[in-house]
Amino acid sequence: MDIENLLKEEAKRVNSFLKDILKQYITYPHILYNSMEYSLFAGGKRLRPILLLWTFDMFDDNRQPAYYYAAALEFIHTYSLIHDDLPSMDNDDFRRGKPTNHKVFGEAVAILTGDALLNTAYEIMVNASLKYSDSLKKHLAAQHEIARASGASGIIGGQIVDILSENKEGDSDTLKYIHTHKTGTLIKASVRAGAILGGCDEKSLSVLDKYAEYLGLAFQIIDDILDVVGDTEKLGKTVGKDAKTKKLTYPSLFGLQAARDKAVQLTEKSIDQLKYFGDTANVLVALTEYLCKREF
Amino acid sequence: MDIENLLKEEAKRVNSFLKDILKQYITYPHILYNSMEYSLFAGGKRLRPILLLWTFDMFDDNRQPAYYYAAALEFIHTYSLIHDDLPSMDNDDFRRGKPTNHKVFGEAVAILTGDALLNTAYEIMVNASLKYSDSLKKHLAAQHEIARASGASGIIGGQIVDILSENKEGDSDTLKYIHTHKTGTLIKASVRAGAILGGCDEKSLSVLDKYAEYLGLAFQIIDDILDVVGDTEKLGKTVGKDAKTKKLTYPSLFGLQAARDKAVQLTEKSIDQLKYFGDTANVLVALTEYLCKREF
Repeated sequence: MDIENLLKEEAKRVNSFLKDILKQYITYPHILYNSMEYSLFAGGKRLRPILLLWTFDMFDDNRQPAYYYAAALEFIHTYSLIHDDLPSMDNDDFRRGKPTNHKVFGEAVAILTGDALLNTAYEIMVNASLKYSDSLKKHLAAQHEIARASGASGIIGGQIVDILSENKEGDSDTLKYIHTHKTGTLIKASVRAGAILGGCDEKSLSVLDKYAEYLGLAFQIIDDILDVVGDTEKLGKTVGKDAKTKKLTYPSLFGLQAARDKAVQLTEKSIDQLKYFGDTANVLVALTEYLCKREF
Repeated sequence: MDIENLLKEEAKRVNSFLKDILKQYITYPHILYNSMEYSLFAGGKRLRPILLLWTFDMFDDNRQPAYYYAAALEFIHTYSLIHDDLPSMDNDDFRRGKPTNHKVFGEAVAILTGDALLNTAYEIMVNASLKYSDSLKKHLAAQHEIARASGASGIIGGQIVDILSENKEGDSDTLKYIHTHKTGTLIKASVRAGAILGGCDEKSLSVLDKYAEYLGLAFQIIDDILDVVGDTEKLGKTVGKDAKTKKLTYPSLFGLQAARDKAVQLTEKSIDQLKYFGDTANVLVALTEYLCKREF
């Protein structure tokens, strides 16, 4: 399976949907459109939308409704990056090799752009529910997953604890909280929302839940490792920043080797879960292997 | 009718619901709970929740579902105030006589608190829809109103144009855009969502739409006038700030007397609309008169 090519093709489809929906929802003020477009199309891998779509595909053939939720996830992910990068937060000047939103549009517009991305995500989901009114309950259950993952018990909670942990002695409980919440919850919600929209049964959902939990943790640990050993140019962001700000990360707490071992172990555990689905999950297995084989 | 007392009693009920729902949704991190609580209970009049509830009351007796949307409106309103007050936006140190959120909790927590309030508003609404699943369509239609009013074509669009208009020559079109979007849309959504949840007919909805449009404009013009002639102590915020930052306001563009005349005229027009409903709208009429009789 040529997973790289599959991902590229899928990202293209997601991008084209994102472009259409942005135009549909944001007509004015122009600076808001430009700023939202700038960050939405700053080179994201579209991991969350693709996870949602590929999970959905396992249970349903008609993808149209799922695209709205895929788009909503990318809007939410992008908003969280813009706000995380702000001077009062992580104060990052570069993201994916490009100047961060506030470096281009200024802080005020960056904050409001994040707000607009978050709000538009919900507008998109609410309107999708109204459009596919014969499956309202599935739609609302998917929204529930995404809303929970985006909120205080998800990425916002994770980001607050992350910021508060800077320059402090940390412990493994705090680290686990940050990892699970800051990255893990939205990855899990992508998988769960895709499965729910596809109409999967309870047992499948609980298997996929575990799959996504391991995947999310592996993904975050690898991100942390890359911040230590990665190449600034390749990653498109400043490496070594976590150490400078004394961020609580897996490598800082347990060392690089233990972090690598943990990432491999979690990846294996996540792929193990997918065996339950046999060949149907082949593409998700390939994606998981690919994600966790980033050089680290 | 003792409207002041009615408002006080209603605000108490809204506050008690807000307190319960905040506890239910935010258990951790504690600083997030404290910060959300600080701004939610910093002395707001609960105008939007009360508008929703009193409009709802005209069409339905069982208020329980409406409280969730009333709460969501106040969460959204509070988030928008916290973000508007930030140093990179309006840079306000005081709001309703108390230090603004970022003065107490710092900028990073203030931004994330706003994000959490916005996101929690949607969590509350999505869960309310799931709870009252026999009237899903009404719930989604109400969410649609609130989501639209909160987004790029609502308060976020208004705030962006407001910020960009500072220290610039403004015209009446820009001013109308700011007024309609920054304050008007959420006030209108409060009324419309209340009516929709209550199950009102199309004709009633279009009458209430006009009522809310006039009310929203009157309300914003009076706010602008109070910034010129008001008493800092009474208002709990610094007056004269609009002039200092050369904000585009009704008094700055047309003069104080024209602004006063316009506010009176809009109030009369809004009350005129309510005549369609006869005595059923008495309490809304009293509220409108009360709001527009703030000393100006």
